[in-house]
Amino acid sequence: MVIMTSSMTFQPVLEHIAAEVERMPGRGRVADYIPALAARDPRRFGMAVAELDGTVYGVGDWREPFSTQSLTKVFTLALVLAREGDELWEYVGREPSGNPFNSLVQLEYENGIPRNPFINAGALVVTDRLQTRTGDAAGELLTFLRSESGNARLDFDKDIADSEAAHGDRNAALAHFMAAYGNIGNPIPVLLDQYFRQCSLTASCADLALATTFLARHGLRADGSRLLTQSQAKQVNAVMLTCGTYDAAGDFAYRVGLPGKSGVGGGIIAVVPGRCTLCVWSPGLDERGNSVAGVAALDRFTTLTGVSVF
Amino acid sequence: MVIMTSSMTFQPVLEHIAAEVERMPGRGRVADYIPALAARDPRRFGMAVAELDGTVYGVGDWREPFSTQSLTKVFTLALVLAREGDELWEYVGREPSGNPFNSLVQLEYENGIPRNPFINAGALVVTDRLQTRTGDAAGELLTFLRSESGNARLDFDKDIADSEAAHGDRNAALAHFMAAYGNIGNPIPVLLDQYFRQCSLTASCADLALATTFLARHGLRADGSRLLTQSQAKQVNAVMLTCGTYDAAGDFAYRVGLPGKSGVGGGIIAVVPGRCTLCVWSPGLDERGNSVAGVAALDRFTTLTGVSVF
Amino acid sequence: MVIMTSSMTFQPVLEHIAAEVERMPGRGRVADYIPALAARDPRRFGMAVAELDGTVYGVGDWREPFSTQSLTKVFTLALVLAREGDELWEYVGREPSGNPFNSLVQLEYENGIPRNPFINAGALVVTDRLQTRTGDAAGELLTFLRSESGNARLDFDKDIADSEAAHGDRNAALAHFMAAYGNIGNPIPVLLDQYFRQCSLTASCADLALATTFLARHGLRADGSRLLTQSQAKQVNAVMLTCGTYDAAGDFAYRVGLPGKSGVGGGIIAVVPGRCTLCVWSPGLDERGNSVAGVAALDRFTTLTGVSVF
Amino acid sequence: MVIMTSSMTFQPVLEHIAAEVERMPGRGRVADYIPALAARDPRRFGMAVAELDGTVYGVGDWREPFSTQSLTKVFTLALVLAREGDELWEYVGREPSGNPFNSLVQLEYENGIPRNPFINAGALVVTDRLQTRTGDAAGELLTFLRSESGNARLDFDKDIADSEAAHGDRNAALAHFMAAYGNIGNPIPVLLDQYFRQCSLTASCADLALATTFLARHGLRADGSRLLTQSQAKQVNAVMLTCGTYDAAGDFAYRVGLPGKSGVGGGIIAVVPGRCTLCVWSPGLDERGNSVAGVAALDRFTTLTGVSVF
Repeated sequence: MVIMTSSMTFQPVLEHIAAEVERMPGRGRVADYIPALAARDPRRFGMAVAELDGTVYGVGDWREPFSTQSLTKVFTLALVLAREGDELWEYVGREPSGNPFNSLVQLEYENGIPRNPFINAGALVVTDRLQTRTGDAAGELLTFLRSESGNARLDFDKDIADSEAAHGDRNAALAHFMAAYGNIGNPIPVLLDQYFRQCSLTASCADLALATTFLARHGLRADGSRLLTQSQAKQVNAVMLTCGTYDAAGDFAYRVGLPGKSGVGGGIIAVVPGRCTLCVWSPGLDERGNSVAGVAALDRFTTLTGVSVF
Repeated sequence: MVIMTSSMTFQPVLEHIAAEVERMPGRGRVADYIPALAARDPRRFGMAVAELDGTVYGVGDWREPFSTQSLTKVFTLALVLAREGDELWEYVGREPSGNPFNSLVQLEYENGIPRNPFINAGALVVTDRLQTRTGDAAGELLTFLRSESGNARLDFDKDIADSEAAHGDRNAALAHFMAAYGNIGNPIPVLLDQYFRQCSLTASCADLALATTFLARHGLRADGSRLLTQSQAKQVNAVMLTCGTYDAAGDFAYRVGLPGKSGVGGGIIAVVPGRCTLCVWSPGLDERGNSVAGVAALDRFTTLTGVSVF
Repeated sequence: MVIMTSSMTFQPVLEHIAAEVERMPGRGRVADYIPALAARDPRRFGMAVAELDGTVYGVGDWREPFSTQSLTKVFTLALVLAREGDELWEYVGREPSGNPFNSLVQLEYENGIPRNPFINAGALVVTDRLQTRTGDAAGELLTFLRSESGNARLDFDKDIADSEAAHGDRNAALAHFMAAYGNIGNPIPVLLDQYFRQCSLTASCADLALATTFLARHGLRADGSRLLTQSQAKQVNAVMLTCGTYDAAGDFAYRVGLPGKSGVGGGIIAVVPGRCTLCVWSPGLDERGNSVAGVAALDRFTTLTGVSVF
Repeated sequence: MVIMTSSMTFQPVLEHIAAEVERMPGRGRVADYIPALAARDPRRFGMAVAELDGTVYGVGDWREPFSTQSLTKVFTLALVLAREGDELWEYVGREPSGNPFNSLVQLEYENGIPRNPFINAGALVVTDRLQTRTGDAAGELLTFLRSESGNARLDFDKDIADSEAAHGDRNAALAHFMAAYGNIGNPIPVLLDQYFRQCSLTASCADLALATTFLARHGLRADGSRLLTQSQAKQVNAVMLTCGTYDAAGDFAYRVGLPGKSGVGGGIIAVVPGRCTLCVWSPGLDERGNSVAGVAALDRFTTLTGVSVF
């Protein structure tokens, strides 16, 4: 239900939210498993809204590049779905995991088929399949994001990718474990290199809000060409809503009421189908890995504007 | 996104779907743990749509009473939320379970707090709290449903309630287990009696589509009075979408794209916020406990009409 | 390997151990879920050794009656095995649980068949079968224990049984859960009453060491009659060694090296096949439910005497 | 309890058992994950008994080399215990796993500390520590086994080691997973190479019965020097009894009543402390990975001779 009039601009709402966030006492803790994340100030905050025609509104650090981490999982999922359609679901499920994002338990009970594309195991499968189809999964991702955001300087951060690799034993374990079930097609070192590079992408709220608009436009890219069918765009939004925020998907749906995807760099992207996209960034995380100020800002946005899928 | 024009009637769509369902080869298996369910013909099919003003369209067995089973969990949740608001969430979570609907595993790991109000453990907690607040949970439910559906003859089915009690060891185990953690306030026999009576309600697609419209009207009852705040109505829809169809919530969101709740009697209710509600019934179930023809019919409805929250 | 000479008496060893235990700093915490256990002084200590001919040595509070709790599970197991032999293993397993003693997880994965007779679920099954075979499981147990210990005043403690029942929700949950799988033959209230009475038995180290000697005598009772075949006596000892001390069975085997069974009242019984039995009591427990001073005393006993099955 | 007289020879018992085994109808299925195991005839059978003085009795294929697989885990455990004593238990537990031998579940719940040294994860930790202490874990193992068996030609089988490596994704997953918790000290490729070589050792029943006698001699090697203290030898036997036969340890203790360790090559070693050791080989496995004829033969041996620790 969208109760805003079409002539309304999002700018005053964003500024109102930024002022509220400024007064929030706690902001959570930054992820500290790699130096690039640990060095961030948890009080940084930026937010952007992109309309279907490419108009972008922003507030705070909305042009500041940050580490996207798991946010890129949305785009690799879309790039694979566009290429292989429903065949993808033979290799990865689309059910909420109900467990912390690194859990190996369900993977074992379900014979190496990860629960959904947004837990790490599932994202490894998606990357593996994109790699098989294109020969350069990370390159495909980068080309797509540069094109949709209109920012040709978007790039991976080699230091972050190296840090991820140096702390990559859990992901290596997941990849080997799924390989034991025959669910990985590429050599593990190739897969991990591709995966860690994707996680290392640096982009701003403005870049990401724009890059996500194809999901609000029911599958159409910025240039009007079609990446996904209308049905596939709905499906990606559905998977974001049920699985996009680790084991807090129910809480996010309850509070925010929009398809969303979070990353441990503190970013969250969200989609208002047929209307706009949002990207918020603040590095302080709650105990489930979602940005504290980011979720609060989206919660306020849907409350203030009445925008929600429910 | 609603692409139907406001002057459109749902009747032709329902008839088109009924004809398609008629040609579906497999229809799943009826639940057989109690005689009243086992006796049903898996090929029965009915579907109703109720608009916000109370207009109802229907097809097939849409006026045939059937066993609602877990569908009533939506209404008891709403009745409790209306009375105690967010305090409820101290006693029950709102995250997808990611596991079969009777699972005790998560209950143990999470100290007797059930994952969400729609798994059996969570529904027992909701009933327990409604019982504490009203002294007659089942009576409150019945009064509400008669009022909203406009059908004063709606009632519980004593034979079904007795059958449920006779096969009630799992629910008794859940109740005792949560009582061990201090999460149940009423005596177990009282709670189970209340719970099994609610599960025994018999109603038709027409009754249930009408009774659900308060969720499409953002909390307003049929008589214009308010049961839930707009925010609470959104929240119930969010919990339905992420948790309403057992461990197939992700698949249901992916295929149907609407908040929905299923029951092992073969019924499913669904909400198009701001637009209408649906109820479909066909007793044949898939291996996850959802009506085979029911999910297929809802899938076709959203595809044919373009109605979806995504 | 028994390196003691046959003329040796155990008395000096027991006194040496009691003096060492007296100097132990920490003694763990008493179980506090029922008043009768919570009221005990964790520093109480008694120990008895019974030889095959009925000679008993003791030290400290070895004649003080205490709450036997799970120690009685050994005797009910033997009484059932004597009556139905290997058929028992269709209803309960004999593998270590590898999990805390109230866990429902494995029970669910293994379709209501408990892992072994010494976890609570398994003991409920054993009691259920003894009840079916005798019509009075607790009475059979009491008769047996009075006869073997030579103490006609042994009895259940009604206050403790009532306390157990008042805190019995977990055991009620286990019983209902197994009933749902068809693995319980008696009405749940009857079963629970029988079970809680058995747990309430009060006896001393001297009583229990004597009552256990049939397991050191390869199945022969005190009067020379046979309760178990030699093979069955071996089997009970094997189950004690692998499953007798909750999820610390490996540690107990490692440190003590004898078949043993512990209870949350602070008692432990142990068997040296062909040689003697032991019973030790001290109410302070470690975090896994075993008596701290009790395990330490048995550890010292096997070290000082060289007695061990390994 | 040993009821055999000391002048008795084991030869007639072994021949009696071999004749019985010859008549056994089913023999299970050979492991088929690597060609060298899959090629074995499941009906091959050999058995050897070694007395403390080095006298060896044998029957059937008792001099036929076979793939020892997990049997070597006993020796690497002893070699590490000899070097670091109880410090080892900070890195690996000594409790039965209660789960299939490759399970990752418990490893995750217990922060990367494997349950015991005989599940694959625990054996990787043991190998890792032996590698750290010696710089050549596999070499140490080979030197020890050649010395104790008196067979200087004992060696690893490079084809088998290569096959293991080619099918090594699960073990690689385990190693990376534990490394993520800081519980692995060597580079993963070094560790896996050492581990797969140990698994590839080829030896006969005669070799292995002799090599195991230090555990029946309370820690003394064949040349009279001491590898383990008496207490440590007891401890290895205790860990074998509670954890040596995958998730069938309870059943093995119940039926055989001796400390034992099995391998998927079809071998089992067992210890009668103070008396003798046994090694049996037959490649057909039951569904839990233990040799069908091997367990049956040991069961018959303890029944016929009265030898048992219980």
